[in-house]
Amino acid sequence: MRRDLHAVIMAGGRGTRFWPASTRSRPKQFMDLLGAGTLLQNTVARLEGLCPMERILVVTGRDFEREVMSQLPGLPVENLLLEPMPMNTSACIGWAASVLADRGLSGDLMAVLPSDHAVSPPEGFRETLLDACRAADAGWLCTVGVKPDRPATGYGYLEAGGTGDGFMVVSSFREKPDSETAEAFLAGGRHYWNAGIFVWRVETILDEIRRHLPELSDGLKNLGRTTKASTGLYARLPSISIDYGVMEKASRVAMVPARFSWDDVGDWPALRRSGACRGEALLIGSSDCTVWNPGGLTVLMGLERVSVVNSNGVVLVMSDDYAQKLRDVVTGLERDRPELV
Amino acid sequence: MRRDLHAVIMAGGRGTRFWPASTRSRPKQFMDLLGAGTLLQNTVARLEGLCPMERILVVTGRDFEREVMSQLPGLPVENLLLEPMPMNTSACIGWAASVLADRGLSGDLMAVLPSDHAVSPPEGFRETLLDACRAADAGWLCTVGVKPDRPATGYGYLEAGGTGDGFMVVSSFREKPDSETAEAFLAGGRHYWNAGIFVWRVETILDEIRRHLPELSDGLKNLGRTTKASTGLYARLPSISIDYGVMEKASRVAMVPARFSWDDVGDWPALRRSGACRGEALLIGSSDCTVWNPGGLTVLMGLERVSVVNSNGVVLVMSDDYAQKLRDVVTGLERDRPELV
Repeated sequence: MRRDLHAVIMAGGRGTRFWPASTRSRPKQFMDLLGAGTLLQNTVARLEGLCPMERILVVTGRDFEREVMSQLPGLPVENLLLEPMPMNTSACIGWAASVLADRGLSGDLMAVLPSDHAVSPPEGFRETLLDACRAADAGWLCTVGVKPDRPATGYGYLEAGGTGDGFMVVSSFREKPDSETAEAFLAGGRHYWNAGIFVWRVETILDEIRRHLPELSDGLKNLGRTTKASTGLYARLPSISIDYGVMEKASRVAMVPARFSWDDVGDWPALRRSGACRGEALLIGSSDCTVWNPGGLTVLMGLERVSVVNSNGVVLVMSDDYAQKLRDVVTGLERDRPELV
Repeated sequence: MRRDLHAVIMAGGRGTRFWPASTRSRPKQFMDLLGAGTLLQNTVARLEGLCPMERILVVTGRDFEREVMSQLPGLPVENLLLEPMPMNTSACIGWAASVLADRGLSGDLMAVLPSDHAVSPPEGFRETLLDACRAADAGWLCTVGVKPDRPATGYGYLEAGGTGDGFMVVSSFREKPDSETAEAFLAGGRHYWNAGIFVWRVETILDEIRRHLPELSDGLKNLGRTTKASTGLYARLPSISIDYGVMEKASRVAMVPARFSWDDVGDWPALRRSGACRGEALLIGSSDCTVWNPGGLTVLMGLERVSVVNSNGVVLVMSDDYAQKLRDVVTGLERDRPELV
């Protein structure tokens, strides 16, 4: 336990890659994808013993206020920040930092956590955060790097340069490499997956935002005192990710290696890696399949690399090669058949 | 209309190849597979103007008595023959012929019709039956042959030898050929699919049964007066198909070519040929797929030659190559999970 550590959980995602199980009104982070609670609840549960509810902030969309309060009944109402619209991670993180600063906690640490990833074991996660706290204490922007076990092309990579005091120094960032580059990263051993987890002092990130995103810094001035941002103020903030907006430009970026296994559970095929499956499944001459059919029996015959989902009145059967196209399909349905999305 | 023509519809099948949409208590012939009524109702509807309900006999299993009466409310109750157990086509046909003979109709004609095939148009079907009646009048056992349009290996074939008066003479039968043979049949032009439709005089088929299946002939003696065969009597009848038991041995077998398109709708992939699909389907990068998801939306992405069925709490996704194995799967489930079959 560190009494000066606050967790900021980003729960504003509107992902469509788990349609039809996830919908507009119930995106991925609010789903029980891996069993034993929703991904958001899993994220909070992992903080047990490290960060009590009083020191957890959740940032989400206005539409999800009820969902979050019902999933996290112990969350103090003043710790729920409601965005009027999605505005990318720089705004979300900057706003949370401003709120903490306004509460007189500028010298404290904040851990920024995605709400929809698969992480285990929780002890390893907490140890890693404590490692990161030590780098943050020394004024670094600290990231968490995951040692790759395959040449994934869908993730961002961190390159570890020199070594600091209990951490590594990040010498470059690389978003979604092609597969040749990913193979080289895997072989080279100096590249880590960017888990999207950050730890820093509140005043450090606010300083860096002031330096690299002055427009955001200005826009945040009147937001520190509210937990319900007005549409007028929030819509004017620049929409940019924290990686592009701050991390790639900052000079003192550290990385601690993850003492846990991690997966961003980005789409239906990814769910397979976490061993998740819903409903009873009978696989005959079939392999590498994802099944999501709660309460039902699913029989697969002669299939490989296929996801089968039965949810909300829709049956989806999708070859893995099409997982990235699901977003376009859902976007098309949002226009033509909004009741299905 | 021929006042001396009776139709015997065989509706005793317990097919499992349309599981999970067809179940033990509702096999294929009782399903609305092609739209516009069940296959059994379609079979009766095709006889309109040729055979009124009073001259239609339906042979089915005891368990299906209610189903048949509810699907064919106009069927006279004395025209429903109830088998205590399935006993193959020779017994079923022999029994129906005995019932007709017992009612003093030995000199009339009977058309034997499967209850679960796709046939269109109905006019062509009726014309074909009338063609067959003329061969039957002359004392022939008349079959209906369908000109093949592909080298199907799952059907029985009839070889047309000489020509009779308005019909062809069948010189040989061939059950399910290998694909090389089927190709040769298709190229040669003398082979026709055996549609399993027969027309003959009642006394002709009873004579032939007496000659080739004397044991069956004996067993039928006490069955002509009943429409509910006793288990004791029926279980003793030989279980053999009419093709093997009589047709292949008989000397005067005729064939008339079908003036209709025909499909035995033998499995889920076959349904595609009849253009049938249930529920709304969205195919993306997909082709040659069967969808059966009544009332729901089905989205297929990146799939070929696959059948997707959502019925009775089960989702089945099956590559065409596995269609023949479905029977084994269902048999296994009958033992382990009878509630699903």
